[in-house]
Amino acid sequence: MSKLNVTQKLIKSHLIKGEMTPGKEIGIKIDQALLQDATGTLVQLELEAMGLDRAKTEVAVQYVDHNLLQTDFKNADDHAFLLSASQKFGIWYSRPGNGVSHPVHMERFGKPGKTMVGSDSHTPSAGSLGMLAIGTGGLDVAAAIAGQPYFVKMPQVMGVKLTGKMPDWVSAKDVILEMLRRYDVKGGVGKVIEYYGEGLKELSAMDRHVIANMGAELGATTTVFPSDEETKKYLRSQEREEDWTELLPDEGCTYDLEDEIILDDLVPLIALPTSPGNVVPVSEVAGKEIGQVVIGSSANPGVRDFWVAGAIVDGKATREEVSFDINPTSRQVIQNLIANKGFEKLIAAGARFHQSGCMGCIGMGQAPASGTISLRTMPRNFPSRSGTEDDQVHLCSPETAAASALTGKITDPRDLEKLYGMKYPRYEYPEKELINTMMLVAPPEDTSHVELKKGPNIKTLPTIEPLMDSYDVPVLLKMGDNISTDEILRAGAEVLPFRSNLPEISKFSYSVIDDSFYERAQQAKKDFGGHIVVAKDNYAQGSSREHAALAPKYLGQVAVIANSYARIAWQNLVNFGIIPLDFIDINDYDKIEQGDVVSFTNLTEDIRNRNNIRVRVQKAEKGADPVEFEVKHSLSDRQIQILLKGGIINEFKEKLSNKDVNAVDENTVTSENEQNQIK
Amino acid sequence: MSKLNVTQKLIKSHLIKGEMTPGKEIGIKIDQALLQDATGTLVQLELEAMGLDRAKTEVAVQYVDHNLLQTDFKNADDHAFLLSASQKFGIWYSRPGNGVSHPVHMERFGKPGKTMVGSDSHTPSAGSLGMLAIGTGGLDVAAAIAGQPYFVKMPQVMGVKLTGKMPDWVSAKDVILEMLRRYDVKGGVGKVIEYYGEGLKELSAMDRHVIANMGAELGATTTVFPSDEETKKYLRSQEREEDWTELLPDEGCTYDLEDEIILDDLVPLIALPTSPGNVVPVSEVAGKEIGQVVIGSSANPGVRDFWVAGAIVDGKATREEVSFDINPTSRQVIQNLIANKGFEKLIAAGARFHQSGCMGCIGMGQAPASGTISLRTMPRNFPSRSGTEDDQVHLCSPETAAASALTGKITDPRDLEKLYGMKYPRYEYPEKELINTMMLVAPPEDTSHVELKKGPNIKTLPTIEPLMDSYDVPVLLKMGDNISTDEILRAGAEVLPFRSNLPEISKFSYSVIDDSFYERAQQAKKDFGGHIVVAKDNYAQGSSREHAALAPKYLGQVAVIANSYARIAWQNLVNFGIIPLDFIDINDYDKIEQGDVVSFTNLTEDIRNRNNIRVRVQKAEKGADPVEFEVKHSLSDRQIQILLKGGIINEFKEKLSNKDVNAVDENTVTSENEQNQIK
Repeated sequence: MSKLNVTQKLIKSHLIKGEMTPGKEIGIKIDQALLQDATGTLVQLELEAMGLDRAKTEVAVQYVDHNLLQTDFKNADDHAFLLSASQKFGIWYSRPGNGVSHPVHMERFGKPGKTMVGSDSHTPSAGSLGMLAIGTGGLDVAAAIAGQPYFVKMPQVMGVKLTGKMPDWVSAKDVILEMLRRYDVKGGVGKVIEYYGEGLKELSAMDRHVIANMGAELGATTTVFPSDEETKKYLRSQEREEDWTELLPDEGCTYDLEDEIILDDLVPLIALPTSPGNVVPVSEVAGKEIGQVVIGSSANPGVRDFWVAGAIVDGKATREEVSFDINPTSRQVIQNLIANKGFEKLIAAGARFHQSGCMGCIGMGQAPASGTISLRTMPRNFPSRSGTEDDQVHLCSPETAAASALTGKITDPRDLEKLYGMKYPRYEYPEKELINTMMLVAPPEDTSHVELKKGPNIKTLPTIEPLMDSYDVPVLLKMGDNISTDEILRAGAEVLPFRSNLPEISKFSYSVIDDSFYERAQQAKKDFGGHIVVAKDNYAQGSSREHAALAPKYLGQVAVIANSYARIAWQNLVNFGIIPLDFIDINDYDKIEQGDVVSFTNLTEDIRNRNNIRVRVQKAEKGADPVEFEVKHSLSDRQIQILLKGGIINEFKEKLSNKDVNAVDENTVTSENEQNQIK
Repeated sequence: MSKLNVTQKLIKSHLIKGEMTPGKEIGIKIDQALLQDATGTLVQLELEAMGLDRAKTEVAVQYVDHNLLQTDFKNADDHAFLLSASQKFGIWYSRPGNGVSHPVHMERFGKPGKTMVGSDSHTPSAGSLGMLAIGTGGLDVAAAIAGQPYFVKMPQVMGVKLTGKMPDWVSAKDVILEMLRRYDVKGGVGKVIEYYGEGLKELSAMDRHVIANMGAELGATTTVFPSDEETKKYLRSQEREEDWTELLPDEGCTYDLEDEIILDDLVPLIALPTSPGNVVPVSEVAGKEIGQVVIGSSANPGVRDFWVAGAIVDGKATREEVSFDINPTSRQVIQNLIANKGFEKLIAAGARFHQSGCMGCIGMGQAPASGTISLRTMPRNFPSRSGTEDDQVHLCSPETAAASALTGKITDPRDLEKLYGMKYPRYEYPEKELINTMMLVAPPEDTSHVELKKGPNIKTLPTIEPLMDSYDVPVLLKMGDNISTDEILRAGAEVLPFRSNLPEISKFSYSVIDDSFYERAQQAKKDFGGHIVVAKDNYAQGSSREHAALAPKYLGQVAVIANSYARIAWQNLVNFGIIPLDFIDINDYDKIEQGDVVSFTNLTEDIRNRNNIRVRVQKAEKGADPVEFEVKHSLSDRQIQILLKGGIINEFKEKLSNKDVNAVDENTVTSENEQNQIK
């Protein structure tokens, strides 16, 4: 392994524990941390519980981009809490309205060669600048901020070679949609996607952000781009050229897996409801009537993405049946869009211009009308994520979205040439963007005077009990493939404000799948002391929200038995003391039904010793014989310890009382890091 | 009455029925109608129920400015319904994001000399252009659109003479706050406020809008300004000079009441929680810490209002503890604010720029944090209207709001001179504003092909029974003075989406005052067939929302007994078949308590014959003797007919089946109108 690809270089330079063998757990030093508000309140409460004096990462930033609607006191109280906690713990604070975490982080903080964890599943966006950026549960981020290494299975690296030139009317979104067309929402699990090749010259740093961002939809651990001349050009435009370092793959390096995209062959693509993996050419579904177009989100955040939409609708009116929503991704984007006239063009054509933030992307408003198609430049279209239960959200490029807003129908943007005699508007990147850092609040040197401001909706986490040796608990839900965290604990304006109030938010657990779940879980907790659920492949894909583990745990969830798990969710389960069990024989899935009662015995010892775990199933069906089968886990030694203690919070408390937290963060990290500078 | 003031001229030229004697009911021809979406869905359903073919007014416009957050399908479904219904019934449709009804109407449709009714309590804003514009219940607006005259008690006209010059740092908002300081929230009841005098030269047409808009908070029927050179200048800037006609008071005319404001004496004023009438000088409360500033709403809608805030914060950062929210009032305001750089200045200083609409003014987001002061340029600060129960909303000018955003404390804007060496930024009105009419959708000539689009949340109104002769019903609530419609049926994102779904919205009736009301009302309906409520003075002040009558009616409300009523609410009660009874002796208020059961007998005859109505009270208190007293009503003959039939919908159905709807709208209106041209 003397010739390294970019991913390997990033990992090697930060490796603290383990070996770089795909599938083996490694511990890496984390340089930067990213928090958003929906997950961040919990992280900050965890930092408080840990007794942290000041963040140990080089940079940690708390963004406020999710809960911006403020229909009652809760969101605003959270913002006040996050400002106070950020000041207390030495964390930058990006004020509400300053923008979506990922593009703002790229504009102001991202640096080639650095590692980052973030409590948001689209954290990999920072891979656009040659970073190794991983989305993970809030507890992992809290640990990283406290100076702990981040543990993850060493991924396989898939090298995707880009060749050729981008056709007119095709943009970065179509590149990642092509990847989703090929690999679907599980194709990236356990992998880092690394792009290389001559075709990279066709992609600006912000184009790479689009691709890295939505790489999360492949299930990938992250996406990595090299740091090259385009990266330098971008950082120069942000007046941060000094933050640039070159980071290229070694000539002759290899990849664990390989693929190639010939850019010339790309056509405008679109993901149909209700998965980002349902990708077809736009031309296949052109002509269908639409009710909404939304442009924005971290999946198309750049000035270019809005500018090109403005250029397409310039001087025309969008259709009156179409709500044409524009979500500027940052304050800086607005300022630059005013300067290049894109803003005026959009407004004049009928745009509803919203405050900077995630907005409709996370169901924070902008729900489409019943029975209508909504075209969005966003990364996800899981069912009901938009806020409308029977939604028909399609994902596409800004070009396709703007073209469709003009015609009122799904429209291949290439057709604008014959419909309007339009030439493809190509964006000229400016030498310098307008910069404004006033809305980024730096932490003070002396934090001793800072008091935490806790509103009445911010509740202390309850204590989780250590794992017991035996359970007799019912199967409360049997699910299929690709259950998303949106289905386990949905997003949206009704639910998200309770993210720091566990008793309230837990009422929404699995409500998308079965709205009797909460009541049945309460009953099972009383009668049996808990429950389990069963699923097939890729359980808990999608958003990283740790409430999708924490809330079921609060309701008594002992274990999940599934065929496979989405990576972040799998870690979250362990972190909150839920056992993620794997079917050994997938046919056993058919032996267990909702309502059955399962028995585990000798559980702690079997887990510790990696024995197969026997599941005895008392069938709910009258007269049916009990069945038995075995399941297993694939946890690391570290994870086994965490699980047995009832999760990472209990483990932290123990470390704190033994005073061995600093031992890990100062000594180990610094010394190993010095040996692993990027070469 | 040969010398007329402007109000008298407007009424005389539109008088169809009655005499212009204050306190007597008159019927006037209505030229224009204004609908917003929160009340408009109901109005459009009423038009459908009436079988209307096409609006009979000169102009009717449906605005979409209230329910813009769309946290589920309901708001978006309503927008689609309103577009389809507007097309069907010959009504202009202003698309979501095009702006708040009142400023957009002023920009594009308002005309001196015309009358208007609107289903929004701030409809009087149009008085700024020399119109007689009255806010009223949706049913009255539906009737006007169908060509029926509008009935109202002939108001007294209060002439307010303006003299002198406006000091620096004082603006139109301070003029209306001074009126509220003098007259409080009941001082305008039964009156039209007409401004005249040399001081008018100090007020642009949009400044007059500020004053006319918030005249609603005085309880006034409306506010009227003359149409003069300032009006002409404004219409010219809107490229509508041809719509201007002069409309001045006759030399030597008189007013029923008189007052005078010497502009030179004004200081920056502020209304403290929780009433627009709690006005004190800003300097009295300066220094208190704040958590939010919101600039916008129809009470400060002009380009100037945003520009002056931008000029104050130019080049500085607003305080990090303050959420600095900007609600542009129209798309046109945004375009002009970009042109004059005000937009950039606000954004750079930390503004959260929201979509054009009412937003936080009606609790549609922007709720402040617990226990913090919010400064708003809005017209109302009734308790919990902001969405936060213990809110502390203060109302002030854009100057005061922007100054306070800079310091983080309530700040007299005059202090900016010594704090920052700032000179008062005075706005130069441009000769022409940028105009954009693309988002106003004209109704088609041929409407036969238009289908109404009704989502699942749009429910047909239930039938209301005619008034019965006797009732034995409990007193479910005893209230005090100045109960607002926000307390009877609160606004906010949780409630407003159900405005077309009566069974759902009725669950929120009186919930601000007593959250057991709904259940108790359901029980009373079952046990007694209905209920009454009791209040003191100025019952149901505030927003015009007719649900504050319709929802209680749906829950079985037979009557209200109060000392006095807000005008719009009083009409709404009758329109939906609730008897608005007046105490004859206010001491009787003490004889009746919550839980008592009241008996009415011979009710229909007593109402018809204007007899006093005997109330027999069975006391809830153990061993207490029954008491009796008399109450009365002050309804017109027309209203008596409506009430006996169970409301205006029943009356309409009867008219329709007798085919005498057209008789009223065509013959009567046109001929009488011709005799009453403005002289």
